[in-house]
Amino acid sequence: MSSISELGEDEFNSFFESSPPLKNKEEIVHKLNSFIELNSSSRGRRIVCVTSGGTTVPLEQRCVRYIDNFSSGNRGAASTENFVKAGYAVVFLYRSGTCQPYCRSLPDDPFLECFQFPDNTNIQVNTSHAEAVKMAVMDQQAAVAEARLLKLPFTTIYEYLQMLRLIATALKDVGPCSMFYLAAAVSDFYVPWNSMTEHKIESGSGPLDIRLAQVPKMLSILRTTWAPKAFCISFKLETDSKILIEKAAKALRKYKVHAVVANELSTRKEEVVVVSSSGNVVVRRDSDKPESIVEDNLIRLIVDRHSTYIKESHS
Amino acid sequence: MSSISELGEDEFNSFFESSPPLKNKEEIVHKLNSFIELNSSSRGRRIVCVTSGGTTVPLEQRCVRYIDNFSSGNRGAASTENFVKAGYAVVFLYRSGTCQPYCRSLPDDPFLECFQFPDNTNIQVNTSHAEAVKMAVMDQQAAVAEARLLKLPFTTIYEYLQMLRLIATALKDVGPCSMFYLAAAVSDFYVPWNSMTEHKIESGSGPLDIRLAQVPKMLSILRTTWAPKAFCISFKLETDSKILIEKAAKALRKYKVHAVVANELSTRKEEVVVVSSSGNVVVRRDSDKPESIVEDNLIRLIVDRHSTYIKESHS
Repeated sequence: MSSISELGEDEFNSFFESSPPLKNKEEIVHKLNSFIELNSSSRGRRIVCVTSGGTTVPLEQRCVRYIDNFSSGNRGAASTENFVKAGYAVVFLYRSGTCQPYCRSLPDDPFLECFQFPDNTNIQVNTSHAEAVKMAVMDQQAAVAEARLLKLPFTTIYEYLQMLRLIATALKDVGPCSMFYLAAAVSDFYVPWNSMTEHKIESGSGPLDIRLAQVPKMLSILRTTWAPKAFCISFKLETDSKILIEKAAKALRKYKVHAVVANELSTRKEEVVVVSSSGNVVVRRDSDKPESIVEDNLIRLIVDRHSTYIKESHS
Repeated sequence: MSSISELGEDEFNSFFESSPPLKNKEEIVHKLNSFIELNSSSRGRRIVCVTSGGTTVPLEQRCVRYIDNFSSGNRGAASTENFVKAGYAVVFLYRSGTCQPYCRSLPDDPFLECFQFPDNTNIQVNTSHAEAVKMAVMDQQAAVAEARLLKLPFTTIYEYLQMLRLIATALKDVGPCSMFYLAAAVSDFYVPWNSMTEHKIESGSGPLDIRLAQVPKMLSILRTTWAPKAFCISFKLETDSKILIEKAAKALRKYKVHAVVANELSTRKEEVVVVSSSGNVVVRRDSDKPESIVEDNLIRLIVDRHSTYIKESHS
């Protein structure tokens, strides 16, 4: 066990050493510590870190081009709302520009569609979007005001992994009452910072060949070193349903997470499969309720499992 | 001349044949034709197509990973506002999720920061963001209502090039009174659709090698075939100031556009250089006015040049 852990740590240390350092590290640490103090120490609330959206991999140091992983951030945003409803405090580690909690029902172009200034001074919300705007403003502000929600944005894989490590470190004392719900789509491949071209790649003549290295597997080090006592849920997204469950089961064994949420790209809003050592459970949205989303039922199941985990940890 | 044009056309035809077809083509054509009819035929307004934001290049057909070009869309959005102010009608062809005209002054998280519901029913705008919200709502809605602004979103390079061709075709009769202001960051390299893997690339063991082909140069075909009479401004972005002007001048000669706006990544909000056959002009923002942006002066210059071009075309 210790040899795996050390191997992972070595790989990570060299990855972090070659990463551009996090710009606002002190500010993030300060926000995290205040948030955790307010929730865990004073109120005994459970705390979940929800990661959301895709990470980018720069192809140039002064970044013009990058490789991106597709993720709207819908899953992470909807899950965050449900965790808050279930009494959790949520650290929402999200890709800049992706879907925000309480904002899923807003139209694509909210400032063009939601509002009016009928008398040139007082703003009004159009009736068609009244509920969506109220949710985005009131429910979101309430969650932040009650210290139920801390939003932390990232863009690159370097930022994501460094921030995740900070969060894991800050949550260490919360132990089994903390959870990692890793819905972000993390790059598997990257161009090591040191071997990267400084300037924009020239578009001269002929094809361009790129060699990408594998990103060290963060899940191993999170489970063994960063947050060994936290409840940990990872995600597996595939476009080919035939290999999905098998790959999720493999990830469960390899990383020893507590469950893997398996989703297929084309059906992911209708159903997911929760793969764990106690078997596979299909979770669907309630198709008879139009506003129902799969996350309503998914988070109910995950919270139940977390409760069992906490009980078992204390016994 | 005709051989260059035919060569470009062949390349493009094979690019388009292997592209996934545009989903809402009829709807886009209908919107464009109504917009042009309202502006050009009835009112004699000049029409500019402003392209904005970066294009993506999928690495998989069922797209999970893609290569993206960095562009916030700030330049395109600010230029659009200035073109409207100068009396133009603007077709704003923009990357989904990038900066929108009249929305540049909004904070990153507007629904968390701009509004309140003090009595639980009536929405209020926080004083600190009153001007920004008014601009995003009133000025933007006025521009759309007066048929000064038509917004068309894209994501992939395939969508971008097909939509640009539709716009050029629709603008053909507007002749010299039409302009293309190509501020979008278009991918130079892509994976041809037919040679692309259908499913998500497996992250097994070892590095990943990707071979990217060059995107056919759209500027050539736009100038020679799609819109030979339109006034045409292209952009050159580099991170290395030493090669910037030289590369802009080369693009001017090669594509026979009317001007190339050269900008360097780190100073692009302070100054640009307009490179044309009449010499290079440095355009700066008015540094004594804090709210001044470089686009205020840039669009003034471009509009002057366009006026001269229209006069010369008619004489």
